[in-house]
Parts: sequence; C-alpha cells; structure tokens
Amino acid sequence: MKATVLYGPRDVRYEEVPEPKILKPTDVIIKLSATCVCGSDLWPYRGANAITEPMHMGHEYCGVVVEAGSGVKTVKVGQFVVGSFCISDNTCPHCNFGFQSSCEQREFMTGAQAPLARVPLADGTLVATSVMPPDDLIPSLLAASDVLGTGWYAADAARVQPGSTVAVVGDGAVGLMGVLAAKQMGAARIIAMSRHKTRQDLALEYGATDIVAARGDAGIAEIKRLTKNVGADAVLECVGTQESMSQALQSARPGATIGYVGVPHGVTFDGQQLFFAQRGLMGGPAPVRRFLPHLIDLVLARKINPGKVFDMQIPIKDVAEGYKAMDERRAIKALLRV
Amino acid sequence: MKATVLYGPRDVRYEEVPEPKILKPTDVIIKLSATCVCGSDLWPYRGANAITEPMHMGHEYCGVVVEAGSGVKTVKVGQFVVGSFCISDNTCPHCNFGFQSSCEQREFMTGAQAPLARVPLADGTLVATSVMPPDDLIPSLLAASDVLGTGWYAADAARVQPGSTVAVVGDGAVGLMGVLAAKQMGAARIIAMSRHKTRQDLALEYGATDIVAARGDAGIAEIKRLTKNVGADAVLECVGTQESMSQALQSARPGATIGYVGVPHGVTFDGQQLFFAQRGLMGGPAPVRRFLPHLIDLVLARKINPGKVFDMQIPIKDVAEGYKAMDERRAIKALLRV
Repeated sequence: MKATVLYGPRDVRYEEVPEPKILKPTDVIIKLSATCVCGSDLWPYRGANAITEPMHMGHEYCGVVVEAGSGVKTVKVGQFVVGSFCISDNTCPHCNFGFQSSCEQREFMTGAQAPLARVPLADGTLVATSVMPPDDLIPSLLAASDVLGTGWYAADAARVQPGSTVAVVGDGAVGLMGVLAAKQMGAARIIAMSRHKTRQDLALEYGATDIVAARGDAGIAEIKRLTKNVGADAVLECVGTQESMSQALQSARPGATIGYVGVPHGVTFDGQQLFFAQRGLMGGPAPVRRFLPHLIDLVLARKINPGKVFDMQIPIKDVAEGYKAMDERRAIKALLRV
Repeated sequence: MKATVLYGPRDVRYEEVPEPKILKPTDVIIKLSATCVCGSDLWPYRGANAITEPMHMGHEYCGVVVEAGSGVKTVKVGQFVVGSFCISDNTCPHCNFGFQSSCEQREFMTGAQAPLARVPLADGTLVATSVMPPDDLIPSLLAASDVLGTGWYAADAARVQPGSTVAVVGDGAVGLMGVLAAKQMGAARIIAMSRHKTRQDLALEYGATDIVAARGDAGIAEIKRLTKNVGADAVLECVGTQESMSQALQSARPGATIGYVGVPHGVTFDGQQLFFAQRGLMGGPAPVRRFLPHLIDLVLARKINPGKVFDMQIPIKDVAEGYKAMDERRAIKALLRV
C-alpha cells in the first residue's frame, strides 16, 4: 500500500510501504475511514525535531477492524473503532488514575496517515461504537482521536468549572476544540485569542464569547481589560512556545491553572516567578482514552460537531498539500480521505 | 520597645526600635502572646537574599488587640486574634477566589518578632477567637499563622484526597504540618522524607505511615518501592531547592500535582520534561486566611496539636539563639516568649 513518510523538513511523500501486520497478539489492523494531519506533525515537518530516519506519519485515526490478534478480547473484526494517539493498556495504575497517556506500556501511535494501520494494545486503546456511524459523523469521530480529546484535556487540566471565565491561547484545531470543551463544561465566558477571521468565526460557533486578536503584552492587557483586571479563572495553552506560555501565564488570575497541551518547545519556567505569581500548571500528552466514551456519545448524539475543524478535505494521495496548507496556515486542519 | 532586626548574614539583634503606631485607619496594634522564627527567615539570615537595610523580622503572630484604627470593623480591642503572614483585604476578587495571598492589596507581615506589632488591613487579615484561649493552646494558634496554614495549603494545592498516598519532601516545620494536614484530609498513606530522629518521631506522631531517610536518587527509589513503582498521588514540596523539587517531581505519579510552598531559590523547570512527565504544579505563598477559621476551630477543639512543632521555647531577648539553633538544625522551630 501507499502511506505517508516524512524524509526531512518539508519533504513529505505518499509512497509505497509494506502493509501493516499483526506483530503481537494484542494488536489489531484497522482500515481507516479517514485520517488527518496534526498540528504536532508540523514540528518535525518544519525541522524543529531532528529526523534521523524516514518517519511513518499519522497518529489520528478511526475506522473498521479488519484483523485482530489472538489476544484481543473487547473489539472484533467488523466493528468501527476510535482510538487515542497514545497507546495504552487501560489497566495499569496510571491508566486507572485517568492518565492513560502515561500508561506503563505507553507508545505513541504512528503510521495512521495510510489506508491501513496497526493499533497495538487494542483492548486498552480503542473504543468501539455500538453501531456503524453514518458517513457525515466520520470527521467528528476522527477528531475525538486526538484534537478534540486534547482540547478537552486542556480544559479538564485547567479545571474549567460551570461559570468559569476561560482564556484559550492558540487558534489551531486544538485551541478551537478547547473552546468547544470549555463550553461543554459550562464556562460562562470563553475568550479565544485569534488573529484569523476563519478561526475567529469557528471559535464563536464553538462557544467563544470574546475574541482577542492582539498578542503579547497587548493581548494580555486586553484579557485584563475584559476580566476587570482579574485575569481568567482557567487558561488553555494550545501552542507550546515560550511566547504563548508567557501569554497564558499572564492571562491567568492567581490561583488559576494553565492546562497546557501544546508540546513545549524551548519553554522554561522560573520557579520563584511561578511561585509568587501563584499560577498552577498541568499538562502533558492528553489521556484521550479517559474522555473517549463520553466524546463519542456526544458526537453520535450530534450534541457537538468537532468535525467542522477540518476546513480542508483532500484525498490522502495529496497529503503533502495538506501539510503545506497547514504549515502556511491556509488550513486549520486537513482531513485525508482514504 | 526592643524588637528583632537582621543586619546581615547571621547578624540578628534584639534591640531598641520605635513602638509601632496606627498608620492607616484599617490598622490595629496587637500585643503578641507569642511569636517565632520561620524557616523562611533563614534565607536572609544565611545570606541567600541580599540585605540592603536592617530588616525588622517576624511574620507569624497571635495576640490581643490593644489599639484599633478608626476604620476597623470586625475586630475589637481586647480580642484575641490570629492573622496570616500575608496581609489581605479579604474582599477583592483574588481573596474571593480563595487566594488571599495574592490579594490586590497584598503585603507581607513584618516586625512580628517583637512584643507589639502593627497589622494592616486588620478586618481582612485577622480572625478573632470567640473566647480568650487557654495559655497551652497559644503555640498551636501561633502555628496556624503561617507554618500550619502553609503545610495545609501544600496539601490542598497537591489535591490530597481521602485515601491518597502522599509524599512530603522536607522535614522542617512546614513539612511536618504538611503531614498533619494530609492526615486531616484523609490520606491513607503519608511518606515523610526525613533523616532526623526527632523530626521522624514527630512526623509519625502527626500521621506519617512511612519514613524515608534516603535522599536524591536513593530516596526516589525508596518512594517508588513503597508505592509499587507507581509514585505518590500527591507530593508536598516544603524546601525550595532544585534538589528538593527534583525529588518531589520524581516521587510523584503521572497526573499528580506537586503542592510547593518552599520559596524556590534557584529552581527552574523544563517545559518539555514537565510535559512528558505529566506532573502538575501549584504553589506560592499560602492563602492562610482561607484556612484560618477551620484551623483555629481544630486547635480550640484540641483535634490537632500543631504547637508541638515548637521544640524550642526561649525568651524573645534570646532570639539570636533561636535563629542559630534553627540554622544548625538543632531546633525544628523556635517559639519566642514575649
């Protein structure tokens, strides 16, 4: 089959690779219903991470099980499944504590920008739907695999409560999903920081009550103005740079927690500053598996429409164009039809 | 009157100073029932903070109101009061959010190692007891002013729950109070990290179930062994050095929060490490005022005995010996009789 391989900065190819095989009894092979390009794929694409060998890309997926290892118990051939980008056994102490993204057997999914993919630890990673979902829900179910689950975790980690005032730093797909999550959790006010009209519009559709287009000191001043100089009760940091983290910290009120899900690149914290500013931090790879059953229910009941975040849909053979469009911020998120 | 003044590293004097006066209508003057030396006083005493002018020391206090400004409404002359080391109005948005230690009008108490002290913003800072407490409870009420409130906040910030496994880094007075707080909050297992017999004994008395004497990698390995390689559900960091913070982070399980109350000196965090380790952080100066009513109730009902943390009681004129004993770790905490 053909699949997506990254060779170096801005060199992504759709080329012939071996088909995935069951390697362990706990694996399954799925036929993808759709897959997509992640904002985090842009780190290696842009050369921020060293690429020492060709990388099989893709960690967001949903689809139908076509083969199951002999040890797989809870999902069956023919079922539609959604899985997390973090592979987990869902039985270890870390999984039981709700942090499947720190599972003792954690792996990160790879190779999902392809027609077929191997999912390890299928029982602990995948959630099967009770029925075969209609085609129009596929984008939203795909979103649950990472970007929705990650935005949801940002809001959960930031301890969004009913009535909270929430600030969201980052208007990528995860930030927009953070807006959706905060809305679902009952936030009264959701301030989305975004400079792009299409993203602003989607943020408003997902529940943002205010848009702040300014960044840096001006953006922080605007948040302060909107919150009567108090700061936000909860802040979602969905970028991962020092600038965005600084903006998040300074947009928060004392006692607030920054839920940070943008993989930090070059971010450091000074202990004494953090101490006297009295800001909390909780982040990391999202334990999407914790939220998946609930998120799938919301999608199947059509209570949320996270799939709208895919503002570009292209055949998977054109995957390179998907990366390029996201890199140039022409697209929020590219869905790849398989 | 005479009071405690720090001139430079290890140069603390009990010498003649002007008596405190009401400076603002919201001030009161209290006659101290007792005061004490704080672990944080040792930072400037040891020269870790620059001393540019003589410092009037002391921020832990309880006693009787002897004069009240014209604007003071809730406390009266003759009442026994306990106050936080953080001065707060208890009405601003940060106070209402439970973070009186980040009050819009925050000041840090000074000059309390003296027979008389001025307390600003008395209505928002002080809690009066309903009756004049018996003498034997004075040490415990004094402890509530900072060290108990701070240990309590560490446990609160670390999100100790009934049944939690808690690790406490630091066997100073605050660490010991953290043990007491974790016990009160229903922790099932409390691992105190301490190398000193007297402190170990007190930790056990306050509710510690395990003592780990090792530090650094060996200490972390011991925590891992005790928790079946999982790590603690909540960690209280009560020191403030890079070593102690590192020990705290590595003693925690993924998803756990480090409640850190030792003022960080030279502590930095790497964003990406923190992210992939998936540890939460919440710290800062303790909002003792939030907890004071409850802590005073517990003391007056004799349900807790935090005053035992004062293993040295000396006349205030010998304050220099109190600093010296704590610096040399001969004493956990020195109470100064006035």
